[in-house]
Amino acid sequence: MTITELSYALDTLFILLSAALVMWMAAGFSMLEAGLVRTKNTTEILVKNILLYALACLCYFFFGYHLMYGHAAITDYSPNAYLFFQMVFVATAMSIVSGAVAERMKLSMFLVFTVVMTSVIYPLVGNWTWGGGFLSAMGFVDFAGSGVVHMAGASAALAGVIILGPRKGKYGHSGAIYPIPGANMPLAALGTLILWFGWLGFNGGSLLSIHSVENADTVAVIFLNTNLSAASGAVCAFIVTRLVWRKADLTMILNGVLAGLVAITAEPAAATPISSVLIGGGAGVIVVIAIVLLDRIKIDDPVGAISVHGIAGFYGLLCVGFTSASATFSTQLLGAATIFIWVFISSLVLWSFLAKAFGIRLSMEHEYIGADISECGVEAYPEFVASKTR
Amino acid sequence: MTITELSYALDTLFILLSAALVMWMAAGFSMLEAGLVRTKNTTEILVKNILLYALACLCYFFFGYHLMYGHAAITDYSPNAYLFFQMVFVATAMSIVSGAVAERMKLSMFLVFTVVMTSVIYPLVGNWTWGGGFLSAMGFVDFAGSGVVHMAGASAALAGVIILGPRKGKYGHSGAIYPIPGANMPLAALGTLILWFGWLGFNGGSLLSIHSVENADTVAVIFLNTNLSAASGAVCAFIVTRLVWRKADLTMILNGVLAGLVAITAEPAAATPISSVLIGGGAGVIVVIAIVLLDRIKIDDPVGAISVHGIAGFYGLLCVGFTSASATFSTQLLGAATIFIWVFISSLVLWSFLAKAFGIRLSMEHEYIGADISECGVEAYPEFVASKTR
Amino acid sequence: MTITELSYALDTLFILLSAALVMWMAAGFSMLEAGLVRTKNTTEILVKNILLYALACLCYFFFGYHLMYGHAAITDYSPNAYLFFQMVFVATAMSIVSGAVAERMKLSMFLVFTVVMTSVIYPLVGNWTWGGGFLSAMGFVDFAGSGVVHMAGASAALAGVIILGPRKGKYGHSGAIYPIPGANMPLAALGTLILWFGWLGFNGGSLLSIHSVENADTVAVIFLNTNLSAASGAVCAFIVTRLVWRKADLTMILNGVLAGLVAITAEPAAATPISSVLIGGGAGVIVVIAIVLLDRIKIDDPVGAISVHGIAGFYGLLCVGFTSASATFSTQLLGAATIFIWVFISSLVLWSFLAKAFGIRLSMEHEYIGADISECGVEAYPEFVASKTR
Repeated sequence: MTITELSYALDTLFILLSAALVMWMAAGFSMLEAGLVRTKNTTEILVKNILLYALACLCYFFFGYHLMYGHAAITDYSPNAYLFFQMVFVATAMSIVSGAVAERMKLSMFLVFTVVMTSVIYPLVGNWTWGGGFLSAMGFVDFAGSGVVHMAGASAALAGVIILGPRKGKYGHSGAIYPIPGANMPLAALGTLILWFGWLGFNGGSLLSIHSVENADTVAVIFLNTNLSAASGAVCAFIVTRLVWRKADLTMILNGVLAGLVAITAEPAAATPISSVLIGGGAGVIVVIAIVLLDRIKIDDPVGAISVHGIAGFYGLLCVGFTSASATFSTQLLGAATIFIWVFISSLVLWSFLAKAFGIRLSMEHEYIGADISECGVEAYPEFVASKTR
Repeated sequence: MTITELSYALDTLFILLSAALVMWMAAGFSMLEAGLVRTKNTTEILVKNILLYALACLCYFFFGYHLMYGHAAITDYSPNAYLFFQMVFVATAMSIVSGAVAERMKLSMFLVFTVVMTSVIYPLVGNWTWGGGFLSAMGFVDFAGSGVVHMAGASAALAGVIILGPRKGKYGHSGAIYPIPGANMPLAALGTLILWFGWLGFNGGSLLSIHSVENADTVAVIFLNTNLSAASGAVCAFIVTRLVWRKADLTMILNGVLAGLVAITAEPAAATPISSVLIGGGAGVIVVIAIVLLDRIKIDDPVGAISVHGIAGFYGLLCVGFTSASATFSTQLLGAATIFIWVFISSLVLWSFLAKAFGIRLSMEHEYIGADISECGVEAYPEFVASKTR
Repeated sequence: MTITELSYALDTLFILLSAALVMWMAAGFSMLEAGLVRTKNTTEILVKNILLYALACLCYFFFGYHLMYGHAAITDYSPNAYLFFQMVFVATAMSIVSGAVAERMKLSMFLVFTVVMTSVIYPLVGNWTWGGGFLSAMGFVDFAGSGVVHMAGASAALAGVIILGPRKGKYGHSGAIYPIPGANMPLAALGTLILWFGWLGFNGGSLLSIHSVENADTVAVIFLNTNLSAASGAVCAFIVTRLVWRKADLTMILNGVLAGLVAITAEPAAATPISSVLIGGGAGVIVVIAIVLLDRIKIDDPVGAISVHGIAGFYGLLCVGFTSASATFSTQLLGAATIFIWVFISSLVLWSFLAKAFGIRLSMEHEYIGADISECGVEAYPEFVASKTR
């Protein structure tokens, strides 16, 4: 046994445990989305979340990984640990989509999109940024994926929402907007806390090494910064909602947490703790504004995923211009634009094709009775009396 | 400080964290079962799950461990880490039973069975396979417990279900089968995802060492294979249910995940990733068929535990004949038969004795009003109006 | 790369993962409290839990840490890992308060208290015990915080409950006590299991080092003892409730688990596994008695937090007199008294000031309609019909 062997083992353990935490984020997205949709679409959103995670793993294993990293020569830790870590990242990008298109999309078409997204669309973005491609060569910095994962997911979601249109009853005549509250707040809070927990692995594990003093210190500062940014996002989103609406809107606070997490993800290692507090706080304010504005222009996103992952992700990429010595605003902007254009356009083409060829939207009747009955044949809460048939 | 000390510390940490993940599976079983029973039996299934975990730890600590491992001389990592890891495994076997006998068994008799199962019945199986006993000497391979834990639990459950009989209202005259849907699908999905997460520790930790390059690579491939098998199980169970019933039945998809996890558990280290995909996919198909068939022969298993852990566990043991160089089909079959016969017969004797001596089934009236009121005096959802009194 | 570097990295990883588990306890308290309050106050308790965690992190980062540890010179592991670990501890103390004052306190006043508690009140206690202050100099032993965290949180909670008074409808004329059951038992059970899981990091991580054989063995025994004490607490609380009320009251069993965890926290490293079983068992009995007695004297604590964290914490501190060679009963008693007096008095003053100056209690009308509508504007379960308007 040599010291090099132990270092290999330690880094492998670190990557595997980080990956396990990212895997666990699948439960976070599942609970968050199950809490924020209506009861009649709850089983179906659970099916989507579990199948998208499963398909993402399989598609990335068979196709995406090779496209993204080619023949990476890994020697400092187990190559399969690296593969597993990369694999669980993919599902995160796709989970963002499921939330935004919830309550009105056909399950089958969602799964077809999942296959293309995780086999091709996402891996190309990943290759450009993390696989030695042109974005990294250009100096674009996206440490753990504010752009590659979160903004990419949100861009695909935005394209889907545009093709799909809003849920029936969401927008009325003459600009009326009808809130459609989520059915189960404890699940939404649980999902957010799962994501907060898992994100420590998401960001920390992205360093891919802890064996030296320098790397251990970096991982520690990543954990600290990630936590502070999320905490600050929560508090600032709370302050905004309390000032504007005089109420402590739980869903906005949860979105503040998530926006803080998304924003710091672009560069959690170079930021100081205090700048992490500022970055997260800004994200908490921005996400509330973005959710309100997107609703005004009738982008119907039941869980706020486009604001949380897209707007806060974009903002996080720009913040790197301040916190990182190597990045500039212009390269960050160019990188963000590249990711958005590629993912948005390719997704738009794919969603449009699927819509034309097969239809991606549930029938009026199926949307009315709910996807649980029409797509799954299983109610989420069969014994509970519902107060309203929305 | 020497390199040997650091290796000892690293392996100890690895085992302790794996054990913590297995402990966390107690929450997975609790949520899965709480989601799949009716509201009127939800508090009681939670009580059973928490008490079985607690009793399993205590009984195994005082009795089972000594029976299973005698005086194991452990030098490469902390002996107490090993004890803790083994301790949390036991509860898993017992959790399988609680699901299968749900909604109609007396709490007290279930707890008596728990004491015997975790003090004697399971530790003997463990001794034969992992404690240097005759099954291991024979060449039987069961890396992390498809047989020792999962099939053993399912065998005890099957014996209990046979003695206990089906729930009132489950089977009608002339072969009619009435579905009794679970009351809370998000909890069932959460439970499954907790189990998926925890299973990485269950299988990975079973190597009990990560300190060398070889071992680190093995742990990494175990994490990868475990995840791929579960993903494949989910997708294949979905395909079957979609083809046969034209619906995406969430409970079947969850059972597909779990069957994939159970099947790969017999040998997650020697299988290639591609064979893991095949093994998990096969398990996902088999479990759906098994659940339907068991229902046909009136084996009433509310959560599908016998199919998931018993049938998929048996199938997983046989698959080792393909993936492992050292195992043969005949030794695997013999090992599986030994485990089944011992656990099934001893459980049948014990359940029969308890049934004769004290009665193991709730009274008709208590079953009708539900175990929550009759056994616990606490409703699970006291403020919610139930749509039907089943 | 040297062996000292690897040791630094290993200890840093150990502390960071332990801290992540403690962070995850925020979800445990959230679910536990969301399950034990009524539906009309569920969103608000989630808001309180998320904001208290966020504020605790920020306040401790900016103020509390400096007060508690001054300029700690840390060289064996990453200083930021230590800071993160200490930061997540603070929220635990504050979570205890939110449960006890649930269903009747204004959100704004709770948040003001949170700021003072986590910036000043708790850090002083921490300084006296863990920061080299007079309690540690005196020989007071509180390894992971039965007193510093749990009894301190309970003392602040008790002061709040006294100033606040009981919920409307809880106590009637001539000594009548009306039970107010929690609305969602699966959430309460989930929360308890999350806490059990996270507590392994809470107690284990408190050693702050695993790199030697001795330390690895100590961490292993801490994991083992923590688990055994919780298991024993569950079983003994069950036995008491079954004997006294002939029912298996889930909430009492959950409180038994938590009391077992709190009690062993004072010294999980020096106790033998068998004494851990005894300590946890005693805590399981004591907590049931304490909950009943506090209810008799009209201390209305909806989740039993004062009994679980205060009484069991005090009991745990005293048990150290038996298990630790260095501690005596008198120093333990003196330490416990110091913590109680400081936290209780300072909290009483602060709560009284807030009550006089702004009012800390919801208006009668707001309490009646529930804090979800009045404070948050968001119902927890908007689609479910409630059986009773309490």
